[in-house]
Amino acid sequence: MEIILSINAGSSSVKISVYKAEPSSPTPHQLAEATIEGLTAPPAKLKYSRGDENIKGKELEDIASQEDAFKYILSHLQNDADLPELSKTDDIHFTCHRVVHGGDYPHAQIIDKETFHHIAELSDLAPLHNAPALSIVRAVSEILPNAKNVAYFDSSFHATIPRHISTYPVDQEVAERNKLRKYGFHGISYQFITDAVASHLKKDPTTLNIIALHLGSGASACCIKNGVSHDTSMGLTPLAGLPGATRSGSIDPSLIFHFTHSAGSLSHAAAGHMDITQAEQILNKKAGWKALTGTTDFADISSSGEEMKMLAFDIFVDRIMNYVAPYFAKLVGEVDALVFAGGIGERGARLRKEVVRGVECLGFGLDAERNNQPGDGVVADISAGDARFKTLICKTDEQLQMARGVAKG
Amino acid sequence: MEIILSINAGSSSVKISVYKAEPSSPTPHQLAEATIEGLTAPPAKLKYSRGDENIKGKELEDIASQEDAFKYILSHLQNDADLPELSKTDDIHFTCHRVVHGGDYPHAQIIDKETFHHIAELSDLAPLHNAPALSIVRAVSEILPNAKNVAYFDSSFHATIPRHISTYPVDQEVAERNKLRKYGFHGISYQFITDAVASHLKKDPTTLNIIALHLGSGASACCIKNGVSHDTSMGLTPLAGLPGATRSGSIDPSLIFHFTHSAGSLSHAAAGHMDITQAEQILNKKAGWKALTGTTDFADISSSGEEMKMLAFDIFVDRIMNYVAPYFAKLVGEVDALVFAGGIGERGARLRKEVVRGVECLGFGLDAERNNQPGDGVVADISAGDARFKTLICKTDEQLQMARGVAKG
Repeated sequence: MEIILSINAGSSSVKISVYKAEPSSPTPHQLAEATIEGLTAPPAKLKYSRGDENIKGKELEDIASQEDAFKYILSHLQNDADLPELSKTDDIHFTCHRVVHGGDYPHAQIIDKETFHHIAELSDLAPLHNAPALSIVRAVSEILPNAKNVAYFDSSFHATIPRHISTYPVDQEVAERNKLRKYGFHGISYQFITDAVASHLKKDPTTLNIIALHLGSGASACCIKNGVSHDTSMGLTPLAGLPGATRSGSIDPSLIFHFTHSAGSLSHAAAGHMDITQAEQILNKKAGWKALTGTTDFADISSSGEEMKMLAFDIFVDRIMNYVAPYFAKLVGEVDALVFAGGIGERGARLRKEVVRGVECLGFGLDAERNNQPGDGVVADISAGDARFKTLICKTDEQLQMARGVAKG
Repeated sequence: MEIILSINAGSSSVKISVYKAEPSSPTPHQLAEATIEGLTAPPAKLKYSRGDENIKGKELEDIASQEDAFKYILSHLQNDADLPELSKTDDIHFTCHRVVHGGDYPHAQIIDKETFHHIAELSDLAPLHNAPALSIVRAVSEILPNAKNVAYFDSSFHATIPRHISTYPVDQEVAERNKLRKYGFHGISYQFITDAVASHLKKDPTTLNIIALHLGSGASACCIKNGVSHDTSMGLTPLAGLPGATRSGSIDPSLIFHFTHSAGSLSHAAAGHMDITQAEQILNKKAGWKALTGTTDFADISSSGEEMKMLAFDIFVDRIMNYVAPYFAKLVGEVDALVFAGGIGERGARLRKEVVRGVECLGFGLDAERNNQPGDGVVADISAGDARFKTLICKTDEQLQMARGVAKG
């Protein structure tokens, strides 16, 4: 029996799932899950579940970094008397880390000095997104010297995107030197979705053609052709493509330069200089639903009659259509399913309804009842009986996907 | 009888068409056309045609600005003994100016002090694109004090784009103050295309649904619903959307900040500051086909077996599909035609073939012979006999479109 920790560090949270893997079973079994949220808005709060045991919203003192949160959760797990499988650090055989930007890595990497150095270096492409995971990865080799630590990259799944889709039409000498191309993200999730949908449809994954939508506080779309990524909406960084909770998504690349103009004086010179960090902060953290509506809660946005919330909802439907339709064409109309996943994808019945209505002319259609009550399975079919193509919901699970990878060896 | 000059000033060229309008005919009649090219790569060269008379590539001295070029052409026209209709400046009743960015103007504007000031002010949104026209507009009221001068805006046609499509999900206070939204361009051309295709199909323009592609050294796509713009690929500036001869088109908005990294040292701080003018220059003037292949000649790119030219061709086909397919969905599949226009749209038989092949599953198809020899009409039908939807070529004419507007009054 082996114990696996799947670690997912975001900008203000750390989530750790504990799995038990046994040689007899291909799928790791979850023992417990702990999340610390609010790192950037103290006090941080703990959520913990193990079997029927639940802790919710326990306020924590002096937990302000991803590393603090990791250490706190580790100690909490070791001290849980009802989790005898993990009573000392040496009980942990594997840690898996979700790392957003993996550069050219087409697969997960065992973390040693060399790979750590390389991951830290390529994080320059997405400093905002890789920093949270890196601080835990850095700590873990000291705290768990006997565990095998593996980095899973959100970008790896997209290594198959053809060159004419991943190339930006800019100076190729600079592009090569600075590694400027479309990478794509949410890949751990898209791999889970591919496997789960293939299994649901009883298809060989290498023949699976789907349009997958991972819609959460970060949102993206992926064209999966013969089981591998053919195109995706995110780019060099997660900024490109769909808008998100605090992210603008694709906008005119000139826009940011017009952002610092002072009121009343549209002077060209006034735009002057914009710092990369400032620009990335504005477009990644101060845009999206939050900037339009004041909230990041898409359930609220979806059900509100307020003007700006209705506008935000319509914007999201429009932008999603801008990816679903071309991916349909790129699959030459041979589509096994349109798949909704992620928090908003799983719970946003009204969003699903409007997106599918938008592509009805392509052959999609929903069963209203199933869409409202899709049930508990990992994959739920919500297609209308007479629709030419299927529409599915998939409960994607990045934590489990990483643990599975480790268990498979 | 009235004489109209249609003036189209680009970053390195000025084109002037001379029309005669008579009350008895709704369409102005072209008398002559003069173009000066190479303003940024001296010596500038003149092309001139009037009836059977042709001048090609006449080298000019001391012509280095748009204003120089305008004055030279004006004098050339007055001194052409076989153009008796225009022998003195007072013979010119109207000048029409193509201005790229018209801000919120939904229609053409007669240029007086107030409108000139306003156009100059809003040009801050697209300094690179409005400057060439502005320098001629400035000169023309002095040189032709008795002519009526009218500004036609590339953005006006898109004033009908719904708010949820034109709104960027960024801070709306800043957006409103700095006028940040999708405007769209090539609108003079799209109006011509709308009228020409409606006439060809014998449809009322207000019921016309087309997907129009204006593909030239600048390229864009437009979803025209009931005769008006519903969506378009360009944005706040002409940079967004499709790549062009020297333009990147839509890229990850973060990319430009990774452009000035020095080789070998991917230091985050090194990206530092990027000047707005420098950034706009790189993405508008040092990207696109030129950056990928060394040439801006898309005919060469289309027929070459060189690796980078083949890549550039495939990139263009891919990006065009990214707009055709969603516009099909936004028209709910009720599409009167897919229309190719602009230099590349008119002459790029292979590009049309590959684009239409990419959206064959939506119901489009080409007749190979007609695609290769579309004939001389303003609109040519190149659809396959069994295609569900029509594909057309339209010889768009921005000069004539402006002159028509003036002649209509």
